Amino acid sequence: MLTRNFRTDQSIGRMHSETPDPVGLIETKKLGRSHAAGEIRSLIDSFACGDVPDYQMAAWLMAVRLNGLDEVETADYTTALLESGRTYAWDDLDRPVVDKHSSGGVGDKTSLVVVPLAAACGLAVPKISGRGLGLTGGTLDKLDAIPGMRLQLGEREFKDQIRTVGAAIVAQSSDFVPADGKTYALREVTSTADSISLIAASIMCKKLATGADTIVLDVKAGSGAFMTDLKSARTLARAMVQIGTAAGRNVRAFVTEMNTPLGAAVGHSLEVSEALDTLRGDGPADLVELSLTLVAALIRDSGLRSAPRAARNLADKMLSTGAGYAKMKEMIAAQGGDLAAFQRSPAHASLAARKIVAAPADGYVSRLDARATVLVVRRLGGGRFKKSDDVDPGVGVRLEKKIGDRVKRGDALAEIYAPDAASADRATGPLLDAFEITEAKPRPAPLILDQIVGAT
Amino acid sequence: MLTRNFRTDQSIGRMHSETPDPVGLIETKKLGRSHAAGEIRSLIDSFACGDVPDYQMAAWLMAVRLNGLDEVETADYTTALLESGRTYAWDDLDRPVVDKHSSGGVGDKTSLVVVPLAAACGLAVPKISGRGLGLTGGTLDKLDAIPGMRLQLGEREFKDQIRTVGAAIVAQSSDFVPADGKTYALREVTSTADSISLIAASIMCKKLATGADTIVLDVKAGSGAFMTDLKSARTLARAMVQIGTAAGRNVRAFVTEMNTPLGAAVGHSLEVSEALDTLRGDGPADLVELSLTLVAALIRDSGLRSAPRAARNLADKMLSTGAGYAKMKEMIAAQGGDLAAFQRSPAHASLAARKIVAAPADGYVSRLDARATVLVVRRLGGGRFKKSDDVDPGVGVRLEKKIGDRVKRGDALAEIYAPDAASADRATGPLLDAFEITEAKPRPAPLILDQIVGAT
Repeated sequence: MLTRNFRTDQSIGRMHSETPDPVGLIETKKLGRSHAAGEIRSLIDSFACGDVPDYQMAAWLMAVRLNGLDEVETADYTTALLESGRTYAWDDLDRPVVDKHSSGGVGDKTSLVVVPLAAACGLAVPKISGRGLGLTGGTLDKLDAIPGMRLQLGEREFKDQIRTVGAAIVAQSSDFVPADGKTYALREVTSTADSISLIAASIMCKKLATGADTIVLDVKAGSGAFMTDLKSARTLARAMVQIGTAAGRNVRAFVTEMNTPLGAAVGHSLEVSEALDTLRGDGPADLVELSLTLVAALIRDSGLRSAPRAARNLADKMLSTGAGYAKMKEMIAAQGGDLAAFQRSPAHASLAARKIVAAPADGYVSRLDARATVLVVRRLGGGRFKKSDDVDPGVGVRLEKKIGDRVKRGDALAEIYAPDAASADRATGPLLDAFEITEAKPRPAPLILDQIVGAT
Repeated sequence: MLTRNFRTDQSIGRMHSETPDPVGLIETKKLGRSHAAGEIRSLIDSFACGDVPDYQMAAWLMAVRLNGLDEVETADYTTALLESGRTYAWDDLDRPVVDKHSSGGVGDKTSLVVVPLAAACGLAVPKISGRGLGLTGGTLDKLDAIPGMRLQLGEREFKDQIRTVGAAIVAQSSDFVPADGKTYALREVTSTADSISLIAASIMCKKLATGADTIVLDVKAGSGAFMTDLKSARTLARAMVQIGTAAGRNVRAFVTEMNTPLGAAVGHSLEVSEALDTLRGDGPADLVELSLTLVAALIRDSGLRSAPRAARNLADKMLSTGAGYAKMKEMIAAQGGDLAAFQRSPAHASLAARKIVAAPADGYVSRLDARATVLVVRRLGGGRFKKSDDVDPGVGVRLEKKIGDRVKRGDALAEIYAPDAASADRATGPLLDAFEITEAKPRPAPLILDQIVGAT
């Protein structure tokens, strides 16, 4: 059901927004004071409609970046973004409505597994995704690799697909959290993007606007993630859980390992293939484990199964019986995608050049750096240097060995998928640099580093 | 001589300004780091010509407000503002070129005494002034009370008057520190006006652009000043002295008392009359002392007389002989002002209503608050609530008693000059509130609170 929700104190926000004093609001934050109720709403409303100019918003954003927002302010800011456009409600559905978000990582095709698998378990998953902004492509970039796949669905179509299929992955429409888009664009050009509160609010306003009651967050930590260290990742995870909990949703965040790529495939078409393989029971161990963990959390937190073991068993069963794969096929077909065409001839299979990167020595793979790997893929054409860049869905890297694997000199470490032989040759050295081979077997690193649950 | 000066490293600035990375420059200051040489110049140049938009400058200004500029950065910023437009040089003059600046106070007509007196002593004083921005009117507002007085002089006329008369007080032209004007306007609407570095730079860029070798600053501290406490006034004074010294000028700053009005007159026409009286040997003690102190400092620091006593003696003599008054008449005549017409019928004399405010009790005046006094004058029409407001030159207050004076109940404490009787009545209570009368005689407060000299 598509509705416009307004919080109960909208009259306060309206009253303020008629007589905004932007200089006074900037000063409050400049002096490190907390905003009164309604003030942030007034500022965002006035900015969204153009009454507050970019330069005043820029000054406020810098004051926020340097002096911070407290929990209540962060919640108010998120609500103001969220209610700047259309919000979704799903009261007439007979299933729990859930959502999943990843902060983005190298080889992170988890959404392509989790969304159909959760739907197969009996959950409704209306997923509104974005393009890749950092080093990695987003879920939409990956789905573009499937011929015919439509990612812009109208309101009614989106609503109907959630009711009939239980899952959809779509791009956001222009009236979805418009104040977030406007603020985000300004943050990028004013060096105010790196504020935990603003990042958390920007992510969570979309999750809240989608209307899910239960949200599972996957915050990546490591060289291939936006947050390179565990502490920052935990801080972001906590901020997002707080926002969601304050908004009355069930929120759980996992902080997961991203110093090394997830799974074996890095590159859009390669990753779609790997996600399909995983749904058919033939996935890499880390991707399988992470996907089942996230789906089990959704099942449990949404109340579909209350016991942790029962929740995990349901997820396992829907994967092993092929129900998740069937749901994936159903979702792709509903959105016009031609899965058979993709499987006959995926973009990576039609590339001009492939090249094996061979191990230079005997030993164990003790390091396989996520950032180094994705930089190779981006240089091949699989990522964006700037927003307007197109991505090549076919290029990428398939990792034949991962951390802990034993290798002999000459063994294939990875296979490069490139548009031409020269590109493949140029990629070889940098990709080899992503690997470290040592005599001693490395200690296995945990996949799930931390878990934060909202106290509702 | 009017010239354009550029510092020797202009090639560095130019190189940077062709490839500015405003986001990187904002980030540097956001992270609390210092800018490299040329970076601030590049930013200001690009902002001045419109390549860097307001919103990026606003974010940088807020980062500066919160993380500060160090001494070198403040000097670089000042130079960038200063060289955004026309600068003056006076190499062909046979006299030392000096300037005087006051941070602004209630009843502060010191410039109208100091400029002609210093010129009478043999100094050249090319003074470029501003309108009042805060509670008090500026020197230009006061001079507007003299019929015919022209404050916009062309380049050649200004230059000629300095050569022939030795003194001129003019308004700044549009090509005088244009980047300062543009930055100032943005600071006002982004709550970034209250940065000591930015304030100091905004004042000093004008002093440096005027081309004076010797600069005396009068930084007011108290309820009627921009800086209400001594500590902030000292900090501002030190920042300005540092900038001027770094630019190779002789700079001395006095921090002076502004909890109580200077002199007896508050209001533009009343203040011009008081300045003329002072130049004719009949001034209030505090105004006379401050004026002689400032002129003696200019004489000494410019090298006209090196011994402090000799410098003070020269200033005393030029006041007592009437040479300063003669120079004032000469300057006013050169700029088209009709002094005789002003003296026959000053604006305050032609007002409809005057009212005496009488002492409510016997005792000593122990407090006479500058801020309360100027608020009364502003409400009468003598100050600006917003920049575009006109000021009424005639309205004001003449203080008949000052701190330390003995009064009897019924004695005149002050006289109100108002456009009508109702306004005068409304002003009575608030003006009375500015006074405090106690039985005990108060201890006299020093006029000059501190003195900061640049180490050249």
